[in-house]
Amino acid sequence: MHVSEEDDFVASVTVYPSTTEEVQAIVRWANKHRIPISPISIGRNYGYGGAAPRVRGAVVIDLGRRMNRILDINPDNCTCLVEPGVTYFALYEEIQSRGFKNLWVDVPDIGGGSVLGNAMDRGVGYTPYGDHWMMHSGMEIVLPTGEVIRTGMGALPGNNSWQLFPYGFGPTADGLFSQSNMGIVTKMGFGLMPNPGGYESYLYTFSKEEDLSQLIEIIRPLRIAMILENVAQLRHISMQVALEGKPRSAYYTGKGRVPDKLIHEAAKNLPHGDCAWLYYGMAYGPQDIRKYKLDIIHKEFMKIPGARQVDPTSLPTDDYFWVRDRIASGVPDIEELRWVNWHPNGGHVAFSPVSPVRGQDATALWDIARKRCDEFDLDLFPTFCVGLREMHLIVEIVFNRDDAVMRNKARACLRGMIDDAAERGYGEYRTHLAFMDQIAGTYNWNDGALLKFNERIKDCLDPNGILAPGKSGIWPARYRRRGWEMSSKDESSEGQGVIPSAGSTRL
Amino acid sequence: MHVSEEDDFVASVTVYPSTTEEVQAIVRWANKHRIPISPISIGRNYGYGGAAPRVRGAVVIDLGRRMNRILDINPDNCTCLVEPGVTYFALYEEIQSRGFKNLWVDVPDIGGGSVLGNAMDRGVGYTPYGDHWMMHSGMEIVLPTGEVIRTGMGALPGNNSWQLFPYGFGPTADGLFSQSNMGIVTKMGFGLMPNPGGYESYLYTFSKEEDLSQLIEIIRPLRIAMILENVAQLRHISMQVALEGKPRSAYYTGKGRVPDKLIHEAAKNLPHGDCAWLYYGMAYGPQDIRKYKLDIIHKEFMKIPGARQVDPTSLPTDDYFWVRDRIASGVPDIEELRWVNWHPNGGHVAFSPVSPVRGQDATALWDIARKRCDEFDLDLFPTFCVGLREMHLIVEIVFNRDDAVMRNKARACLRGMIDDAAERGYGEYRTHLAFMDQIAGTYNWNDGALLKFNERIKDCLDPNGILAPGKSGIWPARYRRRGWEMSSKDESSEGQGVIPSAGSTRL
Repeated sequence: MHVSEEDDFVASVTVYPSTTEEVQAIVRWANKHRIPISPISIGRNYGYGGAAPRVRGAVVIDLGRRMNRILDINPDNCTCLVEPGVTYFALYEEIQSRGFKNLWVDVPDIGGGSVLGNAMDRGVGYTPYGDHWMMHSGMEIVLPTGEVIRTGMGALPGNNSWQLFPYGFGPTADGLFSQSNMGIVTKMGFGLMPNPGGYESYLYTFSKEEDLSQLIEIIRPLRIAMILENVAQLRHISMQVALEGKPRSAYYTGKGRVPDKLIHEAAKNLPHGDCAWLYYGMAYGPQDIRKYKLDIIHKEFMKIPGARQVDPTSLPTDDYFWVRDRIASGVPDIEELRWVNWHPNGGHVAFSPVSPVRGQDATALWDIARKRCDEFDLDLFPTFCVGLREMHLIVEIVFNRDDAVMRNKARACLRGMIDDAAERGYGEYRTHLAFMDQIAGTYNWNDGALLKFNERIKDCLDPNGILAPGKSGIWPARYRRRGWEMSSKDESSEGQGVIPSAGSTRL
Repeated sequence: MHVSEEDDFVASVTVYPSTTEEVQAIVRWANKHRIPISPISIGRNYGYGGAAPRVRGAVVIDLGRRMNRILDINPDNCTCLVEPGVTYFALYEEIQSRGFKNLWVDVPDIGGGSVLGNAMDRGVGYTPYGDHWMMHSGMEIVLPTGEVIRTGMGALPGNNSWQLFPYGFGPTADGLFSQSNMGIVTKMGFGLMPNPGGYESYLYTFSKEEDLSQLIEIIRPLRIAMILENVAQLRHISMQVALEGKPRSAYYTGKGRVPDKLIHEAAKNLPHGDCAWLYYGMAYGPQDIRKYKLDIIHKEFMKIPGARQVDPTSLPTDDYFWVRDRIASGVPDIEELRWVNWHPNGGHVAFSPVSPVRGQDATALWDIARKRCDEFDLDLFPTFCVGLREMHLIVEIVFNRDDAVMRNKARACLRGMIDDAAERGYGEYRTHLAFMDQIAGTYNWNDGALLKFNERIKDCLDPNGILAPGKSGIWPARYRRRGWEMSSKDESSEGQGVIPSAGSTRL
């Protein structure tokens, strides 16, 4: 789903190793010839750059196609060990077919992706085990120079606790390899959630846009206290209209954002009726335990005038409510992306800033997003996701991939939102390839000390600079210019993604 | 509490910086003169080497005395930001004095230590927030070359979420600095547990040593499902007898372990009476919620013949039960170490292997510990601590610090246990200075690949090898010999801790 030219981020070759040893051989070859290599797992990763490498012409190492074994599922310890090609669907189906009724898989919105890859990118899911990175235990990693390490208890020969205790002895380097280009992860372990003994989805709607601030203030203490037990999803009605899967042209053919009035008009036909915000949640545990939490939630949400609890039995079986019900109960699904049909040849990119869970922050981010979308004539589809103490606002921008003008607007709009947010102290948690330099550049406290630190580690572990140059804004010495010198006005960072000639050490 | 000669691990000078800038100045000075420096926070850290440096003659940087400010407590977000010198007592008292009834502090057994330091060493506490490392969010670190970085959202200038979202953007290097010598942490943030709305301690006793295996099998699923909500403590009766604070000589003056018969004889006088094992736990939440969990726990524990629930109202107010009650409800305490009086001039070291939560592993580790203690005529005080999916057996060995023969036995005994455990796939999670090389050496999968990786990062970040050489078995290039070449038979590793002459690059 290219947001710049289709061939800006393009691979020269794709290779399909089947073992860790083959990954080592590829890495050694890349060092010998100084060829950039870019590992991927499996799945689409649509909103964040798909399977493309950051550097044009890099060799993509597709770990997913042949390294797709589930190496262990332990129903007593509630753990698993997987290779990069294991999808949420594959893990879920294996657990079902082996009859492990006590094990749940925490799944993200789309179940076709890699369990390992999602965690490495610090993706989230929708059960109490939603922080996938936090729930990992143990990794096997091929370093950029070809050695293999195992982290945590995996470094102890004959150990019996690789997936049980994440830390081992001494420093834990695991985090260095997440959202980065410091190594290629070939095995990874996870804790699996034990069946909670019952679950129950609920949906509340709120009638006014201005309810946002009060709602977020209600959510914060309930979420931290785990009364709201999973990642809270507060979705705007525009997202629900787009989820119907009809194109924008069915609602409006004029310029600018689709007027709010038309969105609300369309929303009247939805099973839950019109509103401004929808909260999808799930309570876990046996009935009495759920009731305790649901009663508190009901009392708190109903403080907002116009709040309404939607009776699930009133909703048709194909309603989006049941998509969220499946996902929050650990059943992989693929319906979420229906809103990409908003434009023909729809692509999307996401603005994903992190903020405190406060009304004033929700309002400030919502204002930034609307202002920039108005500036660039784009619709916006926002969801506030409350992790635990922090909130990610996810604003999806949908564009027509064949429309260069709209693509450029989408890109400029996102660049603008990123800068606006950073000025107010909000940073992105994850991004598309095209925005990595800009975002790494916003994390520039003390003259970019953290990026300089990352570069130092990068040069130490990858002296030839072959592994995924530029990922997360980290360039090896041969490619390096400072990411934080670039801003929304300077698109030249995208031209940085070319392989330097063998002799050059700096572009 | 020296377990080798008193001056084996001894500092030449102690310095007391008051700011991050002063820490930077010290680090730059150490680089200029190639002097080893060894940072400490505050507290005793008795069982793991105290405040001593690994390298004899190093300059100790005491961060605790003057860098002891609580920089932030946020009652809405349930977070705090502290300097190294903030103890559990200080944080607890500040929260009480500011009237934040909704905030709890998770405390370890002894409350006089550093909140930051305990987390850096990956210590644990006894509420559901017991994994202190997991609950941190954001660090400020002085690198061995003097630069300062902030991790997570701290790298974004003007951010508002440093203590809310631990990951930021790109790689998260935080783990590199835990249990290590890669940097000096000068600020660290934490999530604080919201008041759960009620709590209730309970104690069960089990009559036979052979109950251990069945008990652990009962604990595993309850702990993973969070029916047992805090770090489960299953303590041996010998520990309870020693907690009375009387010396061993009050019970026995013969050679070898105090006979089981005499321990049980003494136990009959304890308020809870004689038994083999004691389980101390706490249920959290309002009464109905607690009852749901307590009923399940009772039903499961009572499956063991001879199991007995102790009525807390039958226990005197100075009973150890109330120590555990305070700790599990977030009130700092200092009673735990009463068992050190077992010997005059008592010192202690701990055998702390990690294992699966299985009956067979508990039995195997308990056998290893008893066999080695018998070999060296030492008593042993074991507690099984179930973290979540893994168990730490903590075997405390108490010795008379003035008795060189007993000290040597304690050391040899621990070395033997470490090797016995590693042969069976069990590794330590933390250790005393004197055993770091040996333990790092057991984590030697793939020809010591992880230690080589750690050394590579060390040499990159600390080219002059000034920061805490040898910590966790990681030696900078100037000092390096391979830790894993040493075993219990080879004590020469302890001689490695001398400062190399300026010109030498390798000892």
